[in-house]
Amino acid sequence: MKPLRSRFEKDTDSKVQKYTESISYDQQLYREDIIGSIAHARMLSQCGIIGWDEVEKIVEGLNSIREEIQNGEFTFDPALEDIHMSIETRLFEKIGEVAGKLHTARSRNDQVATDMRMYAKDAIFETIVLLQGFQKVILDLAETNKEVIIPGYTHMQRAQPILLAHHLLAYFEMAQRDIDRFQDCLKRTDVLPLGSGALAGVPYRIDRNMVAKDLGFAETSANSLDAVSDRDFIIEYQAAASIAMMHLSRLAEEMIIWSSAEFGFIEIDDAYATSSSIMPQKKNPDVAELARGKTGRVYGNLMAILTTMKGLPLAYNRDLQEDKEGFFDTVNTLNSTLEVFSGMLETVKFNAERTGKAASENYTLATDVADYLAKKGVPFREAHGIVGKLVVLAISKGKELTELSLTDYQNLSPHFEEDVFSITSQSSIADRNTHGGTAPKQLERALKIARRKLNE
Amino acid sequence: MKPLRSRFEKDTDSKVQKYTESISYDQQLYREDIIGSIAHARMLSQCGIIGWDEVEKIVEGLNSIREEIQNGEFTFDPALEDIHMSIETRLFEKIGEVAGKLHTARSRNDQVATDMRMYAKDAIFETIVLLQGFQKVILDLAETNKEVIIPGYTHMQRAQPILLAHHLLAYFEMAQRDIDRFQDCLKRTDVLPLGSGALAGVPYRIDRNMVAKDLGFAETSANSLDAVSDRDFIIEYQAAASIAMMHLSRLAEEMIIWSSAEFGFIEIDDAYATSSSIMPQKKNPDVAELARGKTGRVYGNLMAILTTMKGLPLAYNRDLQEDKEGFFDTVNTLNSTLEVFSGMLETVKFNAERTGKAASENYTLATDVADYLAKKGVPFREAHGIVGKLVVLAISKGKELTELSLTDYQNLSPHFEEDVFSITSQSSIADRNTHGGTAPKQLERALKIARRKLNE
Amino acid sequence: MKPLRSRFEKDTDSKVQKYTESISYDQQLYREDIIGSIAHARMLSQCGIIGWDEVEKIVEGLNSIREEIQNGEFTFDPALEDIHMSIETRLFEKIGEVAGKLHTARSRNDQVATDMRMYAKDAIFETIVLLQGFQKVILDLAETNKEVIIPGYTHMQRAQPILLAHHLLAYFEMAQRDIDRFQDCLKRTDVLPLGSGALAGVPYRIDRNMVAKDLGFAETSANSLDAVSDRDFIIEYQAAASIAMMHLSRLAEEMIIWSSAEFGFIEIDDAYATSSSIMPQKKNPDVAELARGKTGRVYGNLMAILTTMKGLPLAYNRDLQEDKEGFFDTVNTLNSTLEVFSGMLETVKFNAERTGKAASENYTLATDVADYLAKKGVPFREAHGIVGKLVVLAISKGKELTELSLTDYQNLSPHFEEDVFSITSQSSIADRNTHGGTAPKQLERALKIARRKLNE
Amino acid sequence: MKPLRSRFEKDTDSKVQKYTESISYDQQLYREDIIGSIAHARMLSQCGIIGWDEVEKIVEGLNSIREEIQNGEFTFDPALEDIHMSIETRLFEKIGEVAGKLHTARSRNDQVATDMRMYAKDAIFETIVLLQGFQKVILDLAETNKEVIIPGYTHMQRAQPILLAHHLLAYFEMAQRDIDRFQDCLKRTDVLPLGSGALAGVPYRIDRNMVAKDLGFAETSANSLDAVSDRDFIIEYQAAASIAMMHLSRLAEEMIIWSSAEFGFIEIDDAYATSSSIMPQKKNPDVAELARGKTGRVYGNLMAILTTMKGLPLAYNRDLQEDKEGFFDTVNTLNSTLEVFSGMLETVKFNAERTGKAASENYTLATDVADYLAKKGVPFREAHGIVGKLVVLAISKGKELTELSLTDYQNLSPHFEEDVFSITSQSSIADRNTHGGTAPKQLERALKIARRKLNE
Repeated sequence: MKPLRSRFEKDTDSKVQKYTESISYDQQLYREDIIGSIAHARMLSQCGIIGWDEVEKIVEGLNSIREEIQNGEFTFDPALEDIHMSIETRLFEKIGEVAGKLHTARSRNDQVATDMRMYAKDAIFETIVLLQGFQKVILDLAETNKEVIIPGYTHMQRAQPILLAHHLLAYFEMAQRDIDRFQDCLKRTDVLPLGSGALAGVPYRIDRNMVAKDLGFAETSANSLDAVSDRDFIIEYQAAASIAMMHLSRLAEEMIIWSSAEFGFIEIDDAYATSSSIMPQKKNPDVAELARGKTGRVYGNLMAILTTMKGLPLAYNRDLQEDKEGFFDTVNTLNSTLEVFSGMLETVKFNAERTGKAASENYTLATDVADYLAKKGVPFREAHGIVGKLVVLAISKGKELTELSLTDYQNLSPHFEEDVFSITSQSSIADRNTHGGTAPKQLERALKIARRKLNE
Repeated sequence: MKPLRSRFEKDTDSKVQKYTESISYDQQLYREDIIGSIAHARMLSQCGIIGWDEVEKIVEGLNSIREEIQNGEFTFDPALEDIHMSIETRLFEKIGEVAGKLHTARSRNDQVATDMRMYAKDAIFETIVLLQGFQKVILDLAETNKEVIIPGYTHMQRAQPILLAHHLLAYFEMAQRDIDRFQDCLKRTDVLPLGSGALAGVPYRIDRNMVAKDLGFAETSANSLDAVSDRDFIIEYQAAASIAMMHLSRLAEEMIIWSSAEFGFIEIDDAYATSSSIMPQKKNPDVAELARGKTGRVYGNLMAILTTMKGLPLAYNRDLQEDKEGFFDTVNTLNSTLEVFSGMLETVKFNAERTGKAASENYTLATDVADYLAKKGVPFREAHGIVGKLVVLAISKGKELTELSLTDYQNLSPHFEEDVFSITSQSSIADRNTHGGTAPKQLERALKIARRKLNE
Repeated sequence: MKPLRSRFEKDTDSKVQKYTESISYDQQLYREDIIGSIAHARMLSQCGIIGWDEVEKIVEGLNSIREEIQNGEFTFDPALEDIHMSIETRLFEKIGEVAGKLHTARSRNDQVATDMRMYAKDAIFETIVLLQGFQKVILDLAETNKEVIIPGYTHMQRAQPILLAHHLLAYFEMAQRDIDRFQDCLKRTDVLPLGSGALAGVPYRIDRNMVAKDLGFAETSANSLDAVSDRDFIIEYQAAASIAMMHLSRLAEEMIIWSSAEFGFIEIDDAYATSSSIMPQKKNPDVAELARGKTGRVYGNLMAILTTMKGLPLAYNRDLQEDKEGFFDTVNTLNSTLEVFSGMLETVKFNAERTGKAASENYTLATDVADYLAKKGVPFREAHGIVGKLVVLAISKGKELTELSLTDYQNLSPHFEEDVFSITSQSSIADRNTHGGTAPKQLERALKIARRKLNE
Repeated sequence: MKPLRSRFEKDTDSKVQKYTESISYDQQLYREDIIGSIAHARMLSQCGIIGWDEVEKIVEGLNSIREEIQNGEFTFDPALEDIHMSIETRLFEKIGEVAGKLHTARSRNDQVATDMRMYAKDAIFETIVLLQGFQKVILDLAETNKEVIIPGYTHMQRAQPILLAHHLLAYFEMAQRDIDRFQDCLKRTDVLPLGSGALAGVPYRIDRNMVAKDLGFAETSANSLDAVSDRDFIIEYQAAASIAMMHLSRLAEEMIIWSSAEFGFIEIDDAYATSSSIMPQKKNPDVAELARGKTGRVYGNLMAILTTMKGLPLAYNRDLQEDKEGFFDTVNTLNSTLEVFSGMLETVKFNAERTGKAASENYTLATDVADYLAKKGVPFREAHGIVGKLVVLAISKGKELTELSLTDYQNLSPHFEEDVFSITSQSSIADRNTHGGTAPKQLERALKIARRKLNE
């Protein structure tokens, strides 16, 4: 008979064991589980609930189990359900009945919630560091390509010339919001549930603050029912991760399109491209494609946990066991994507000649011509209409705007003068010189601010 | 020919107009759009870009349009696509060509982003107020039912007796996290995009800070491409709303179960119950059911916007128009649910006799008996096993634990003494007297803290 | 006091009425509701449950209500909850007490399920017709562009030359699977729930088959609890719609990319493009972008109904009211997208010169060269390696493969002979001459089969 | 240098290898991959494309690799990306250069699509068998509990008495629709993509029908681009699985509620219940809870693949690699849930005394009383109102309807006579005697039909 089944007449069916076990994936929480148990045991002794000699045995036992696991010498038995039972059973083998005292004033419900929060805190820290690494790559790339001009697009149509660095910094901003979101999530994760018992608190004079301090938690949970049944921190991480992956999917899409033969804006380094089993000439932007594709997985994990939590009465229900795999997967997916994506970006080469040429074609300066008129007092909407006709004329002649004659211009509006021909990509960019605009002066400021933020 | 189509040879197909229009739903942004335009016009004049007399006409025109809309005298023409074009066209009818000057240094891309952020800020404020209202109802209910004992459940099985008020305060905690999340979301929403133009900034010496101050924004956006294509604030609201609805779905589930004949823990007020078309005796907890059911809609809207944003290259794409309906729906759903749910809770009656009886049956004090042994030095796991056997014995005799004889107890462990019979629901509850536990002392403290938080 | 509340002491709160009403959206079911009621009334009389004269009054009353609604003369009162109560109440006003007899042997639960299935059947028919219309446009486009060569892509990299028509027919196949799925869904929708009562059947000798025949249902439901609580047909439609929208999103993505200046493969007709408020030169593929963006909405509606249904005990729960809005929205979105998208496709112009040129550049014939070697006995993997080196050589020389010398070829493999230069886009395409391949012969066959399928 | 990289100057980064590999999960496709390769090789030889002696070596090699894998003697090297490359590389080690000939007229794109369809077909077969097993358990349970009466619920309120067997058969119907959906999905899965090459078909005279026949496919794909990029069959399986899990979640919810102390309708067998780490008296319905919770995971996987597919241009993109893990997980989750859930149901015990008593309390016969009046000519709505008042009266007197006096009845309507007291649960059930109703006669018929369907 397995542990904890003293009131039952038979053991669980073997298929049930397989169906209900979590040891195949929660074994990665072993470190958190052992550290948490040690802190709990120390506190129990400090509060006079169990003896100091008993704690010594328990801690020694737990430490040697940790080593066994680290060294791959520990056999995980699926019959023992989860990491908590596995460690508890092994501890009993090692130190005997005193092992049973570790579970005084504690339930698996508050224990697993504690393990998960420890894991989540580490995950958040790692994600933030990787987001900062991504920001650094973006920033470096922006700084080393400061002069490069690309077309700014709306609707995938060339719209206005911009600086590549300005384009890249848009992703710096997104990553910054991501970081802020994870930091906000951290505040709500950094709360110790241990001491909540199964659901109602524990009937011992324990010192929860001592455990919190020991384990590095900022505070202890305020309501025991909430503490054992709350998974907001997991959902919130997954929501923030979904947004972060969405950001990466947008850049991934651009990388993929930019590396097409038709755009030819970038070349992805061989180390980040893969080949075809049938077409030897291919050089595929697989990392970007996978990053884009894995967005689905992260969204799916978010939807999964939201669905699982819907309509659950308080407090703990076994459904909550489903909080783990999707969360682990999202953490791994986001963090590995950030790492590999940053590596890919770091080594990408821009073809400034092509992007610059593209930025000056297809009437991308039409807005500037409309603004030229507006500055001479023509209401902007009227100016917009005039330039629209100018574009039609140019298209019908197969010319760019700069190739039309002044007469062509003046036929449409008497406000046009010779200086309309001094409008160039460079002048257009330089003119957008207010906070947030693409002008070089604004870019320099933005780069400085970004660098400062990064160094904080 | 519609506005803005000077370069085209024909008008859009009528089905296309119907397909691409947003006026049927974005008309509710009229207030934001007009206020934003007024602030923009004032700034343009302040910066010497258009004349003060021109601004006066524009502002007067806009104000009278606002009145027309408020009074239901404004006809929204689907051919005019969206609220911006509708107002612009009407302004032109009212004040003539000078209307066209309003669109200097502005694009629909930064304009609509500004409208949406103004709307979102209001939505967040309202949601927070309603969450606080919900908290107040929870708190009042807890305070007026301080003595009521209910069974605490895990796995829908009676586990341990707890105070109803303690159970209710779990929802106070959830709502508090919800509030915190919306406040964090507000920080990232409270950023003015106006001045970003179509995507690259604008070629005028505008004063973005003046507009921000005028419209009550905390700061101006740092990157023009990001500003026009960022919808994080909408997604973040929807993610926070999904979590909040999940919380409400849990309480809704409890309300529904508790109002079943079998539980009979509560009676929902007639004003919040509905009837059956065929079964006259029925009194259905429809509000709770709809709140639970509407969780699906809010999750769906989150998934919709995440999907829409996936893989979009910078900057603006028409896909972004899809940001609105789902967002408006989520705001309305969450806010109306909070309002109605609070009203339902406020009037619910608890049947303390039934809940108290339920809390003392089904061996809910077994843990306390195990803890009794543990406190006498029996390792908790061993104590757990002994009490398991005690429960089996009691079941076989068809008795509660308190109905067994001392001999029954002592046959299983010599540590049992007469005082084991002094374990009651009350003593069990009182014993869980650490931070977060259900003991009356802890509850008093928790109520005080909650009340203080609410009054801040 | 509202109808059906005889056992209650007070009316529902006005906010509750607003929260729980469905009349604002289920009023579009008025036709189904009235037709269903007429069939029910006739059957009741046929079975001797109510009098024929009573039925005549009821039918006359219902028909005149239908006219009122059609003529916009009917006032929907939110206090009357839903379309069923609205019509019932109005019928009472018109014909007095006998109206109450209509509700013999019927509950709102089986009534609304019947209305929804009638609506769903119509929706499926319309969707199938529109999918066939889409197929027709694809097929016409393929036939009129039979000679056009485009690059086939994998990973957005040019891979091998193919016929545009072959590419287009891939979407014909997808639409065919969509049609099949909707037809399968129809089988499970075409089941009459009326006669199931509230949940248990009705205590009258009714003739369900008569009603089914009258309303055009293929069969009657086999289990009353299932009949009133089953919403599979709605979910199944939404799942099929999600896949169909996914297909459209793929074609939309291609349309958007192909209409970029860089690709320049297509020009979208002015009637299907829109303009920019600030950039007069822009011609944006808005229909394609919205179709892509609206994919999110359809996915979201699927997720919403799945979430709502999760974990609901039998039989009817008020949560089920949430089945409507998302379903209506998905039906409207899919059907309008199919219609507008087909219109856009019908008028799109391909630039055969550009696509043909693109198809022959970037080593798209490398696979053919490897196959050339394989056909001479070189194991394909080895041939793949040799051609890989050939591509590297060509890139280093800045040449296409056809521009290398025979010596260049023979240095890498002695199997190369002069005839390697006869490999062209045309020969490559013609060579892929097995079922499903891009060769003109296969295309002709595929076109014929498709046309036949469409004409069935 | 890894295989297929002849045109590259360096190998992929090790992090990239880890990020892009699929071998850790697609290794479970080894059987499909080898069987598919053998069929392909045989066909190549039959068509004279490679020699028969070469095929013999290839087949022998592949068979011995299969054995190695089955015996756990095969080392999967993450550097070899996927199962296809792993087997290909090993084959090369075993039989040398001739191994390279296997890849004639085939690409990884059509190869992996073939493997996945073979896997999917097996998965569908298994799911259908398990659904039938579930139906059998439902049916057996219904037959052995034919006399048991339970309350039928709407809104979780007792509504009308029904037969438990009738309630259970609702799930038989749901499972039947599930089976039908999987069978429909099978039709669209049973299509061989091999022979589509990378995207355009292959330049060899291959015989696709021979391969299809060999591998048991009903037909060959009609369009090569579609064949390599279509994942509809995976999505369709996932959608059908989501609906099936939704059904199970409803029954799970009922099991959980029914096993609460308050309901006490069922006892779950010890083999399917688990215990508490802190509360020795607990007997938790974990299997039902996990089944309910795992619904989230299945919904999430559906959302993941839909998201991944959104907006992908033709044909193959690396994003498609993300089709596997979620699919495998859904197949495993649904199938194991069906198996374990069926086991749990098989052993569940109903407490007929409690359910019968519950079914006759709380005015569950009120509808029958209204129908009693309606049958005497009182319009049903009026009858409904009268009985509503009767219920209010009974509640105020603390009595059931049967405990009121005839005078009480007649005070509300003169149509009441002594025979109103002969209305019982039994008579109520027997009266619902139309197709689909709960009457014993209908049940007998329904059981017979269900049994016949199952034996087909």
